Amino acid sequence: MTKAPDRAALDHTAPDQTLADLSEGEVLARIFPRLPHADTELLGPGDDAAVLSAADGRFVVTCDMMIQGPDFRLAWSTPHDLGWKAAATNLSDVAAMGARPTALVVAIAAPPSTPISVILGIADGLRDGCEALAPGCGVVGGDLSASDALTLSITAFGDLEGRAPVLRSGATAGDVVAHAGRLGDAGIGLGLLFRFGVDADGVPDRAAADNLKLREPRFVEAQLAPVPPIGLGPVAAAAGATAMLDVSDGLAIDAGRLARASGVGVDFDSAALGDHRELALGGGEDHGLLATFPAAAVLPAGFRRIGTVTDQPGIVLVDGEAHTQGGWDPYRGWDGATS
Amino acid sequence: MTKAPDRAALDHTAPDQTLADLSEGEVLARIFPRLPHADTELLGPGDDAAVLSAADGRFVVTCDMMIQGPDFRLAWSTPHDLGWKAAATNLSDVAAMGARPTALVVAIAAPPSTPISVILGIADGLRDGCEALAPGCGVVGGDLSASDALTLSITAFGDLEGRAPVLRSGATAGDVVAHAGRLGDAGIGLGLLFRFGVDADGVPDRAAADNLKLREPRFVEAQLAPVPPIGLGPVAAAAGATAMLDVSDGLAIDAGRLARASGVGVDFDSAALGDHRELALGGGEDHGLLATFPAAAVLPAGFRRIGTVTDQPGIVLVDGEAHTQGGWDPYRGWDGATS
Repeated sequence: MTKAPDRAALDHTAPDQTLADLSEGEVLARIFPRLPHADTELLGPGDDAAVLSAADGRFVVTCDMMIQGPDFRLAWSTPHDLGWKAAATNLSDVAAMGARPTALVVAIAAPPSTPISVILGIADGLRDGCEALAPGCGVVGGDLSASDALTLSITAFGDLEGRAPVLRSGATAGDVVAHAGRLGDAGIGLGLLFRFGVDADGVPDRAAADNLKLREPRFVEAQLAPVPPIGLGPVAAAAGATAMLDVSDGLAIDAGRLARASGVGVDFDSAALGDHRELALGGGEDHGLLATFPAAAVLPAGFRRIGTVTDQPGIVLVDGEAHTQGGWDPYRGWDGATS
Repeated sequence: MTKAPDRAALDHTAPDQTLADLSEGEVLARIFPRLPHADTELLGPGDDAAVLSAADGRFVVTCDMMIQGPDFRLAWSTPHDLGWKAAATNLSDVAAMGARPTALVVAIAAPPSTPISVILGIADGLRDGCEALAPGCGVVGGDLSASDALTLSITAFGDLEGRAPVLRSGATAGDVVAHAGRLGDAGIGLGLLFRFGVDADGVPDRAAADNLKLREPRFVEAQLAPVPPIGLGPVAAAAGATAMLDVSDGLAIDAGRLARASGVGVDFDSAALGDHRELALGGGEDHGLLATFPAAAVLPAGFRRIGTVTDQPGIVLVDGEAHTQGGWDPYRGWDGATS
């Protein structure tokens, strides 16, 4: 999957070099040393494939692709943000199974005119994201291609450490509904970027976004470089979580998925959703963990009770009343702008 | 990673529907039933991540991205070809470690205007490729995104079945150099497509390519839907292969990689390279297996002796004389045409 890097070529990169100025091997030789090592790596980059240990006899796997335009804009996200977010969102899917993230493989496609500094920034973001969110998780391989739009495709692995995976389908009526992580912040950040991170014509603009980051760092950083509670996935599993998922498309939509998979309903307690109830229910990309626990369970630190599991299959309520869902669809939510 | 499909939506797809006409869940509901099941699948699509068994306590992983323009043209490749080739090239990297391919995860990005039939054709190609090349290997999950260029990103897994992986670095002087699979056919096919699969202005053209496929099926099919000798990877490992890799960039280039990794040289026997020696040495994308075996080893059926390992580090010779390499670089080999 990866070519053996020419180590002699390291650290001789002029900052304005582009991918077209370097061979694939030269680019990879600059990337690999920046990437974190995985504790489970038996054989890393440089051969046709990597080899990872799976002491548990099983492994968890998930994948997600991020594409310039529909998924991010370079006027708003730094390369470091992109690497960080690509790691964070995939690690979160692993954590939502109750697994400890162990490794990533990363395929990057970029225009030949892309400065090498962009690719190195992505690598640094992947490293810092792994180190901060899932220590011991590393990058074990990848692929580098040419494309018109910058594209990151990540596959992430996890170790269940002997536990059963926590599925979406295990909730039963009477369980407590709990959440760990932020609710609505990333959605607020995206709204702020579309409103204030643009120029006079409404086009995404770096200077405007940088200014916004200084004024509203909490919300903008939640959108561009989220810090999901990865470590709480295995903790929730060990504490007896009956069902769990990663809140990527908004609390109401994802609660509906859990409810349908489990054949139950969810009734949220609006008092637990904070002052911005609709944003908490509708805002996507926070990548918190939505989990259900038996009524008698002691919730692990980091989780808050936000509702109750009911016996009404597929029904999501707030304080016992119906809630109308809205949300993100990849083929309906993109306006085609790629700046 | 995947949303739970709505099974009730199955088999109600009008042939001219596009991705924009359907929700992500509706598209996935049409794709999943067409995909092959993996024997190692403990939990398949529909949750945040899949769970696979790894009875060996290790697993092999590789990834590769294919993008419209640099890597394929829709005027030449059918959707079925794309799915087949994406499977074949990734399975080949797994086989080159001496592993048996077990599963794939597949991320697809496509323009909203893409007919659903294209996505279903890719799914059928993935299924048929897995069934033909690696029975028991299946698709365990994926991701669907919007993009301007059709993009397939595959991650493939394999089982070493208790054996050590066969690395590029294990060859020693005196070993036999052997090859399984085709040599040069895919390169000839690509040359034919660029010469005859185009219209009067040199633009890739479906009718011209279809005509060419009828006249030169062997070479064109080797390029568009290769049939690499996946099953021979584990066979070579069991037979004592000392080093092995997948010939993706041409025999000379890939032999150079094996030679450098092993600190040895390779001397090819031109009589074993066939009538088209330069095409055999330089043509890429055949995805045969290049392996070295101890001099006394009996080569497994399917492998042919094509040379000898020498003690000249990194040197690739033909009949004892120097051979100049040429080959494919993703940032230098693409002219930007995407039709």
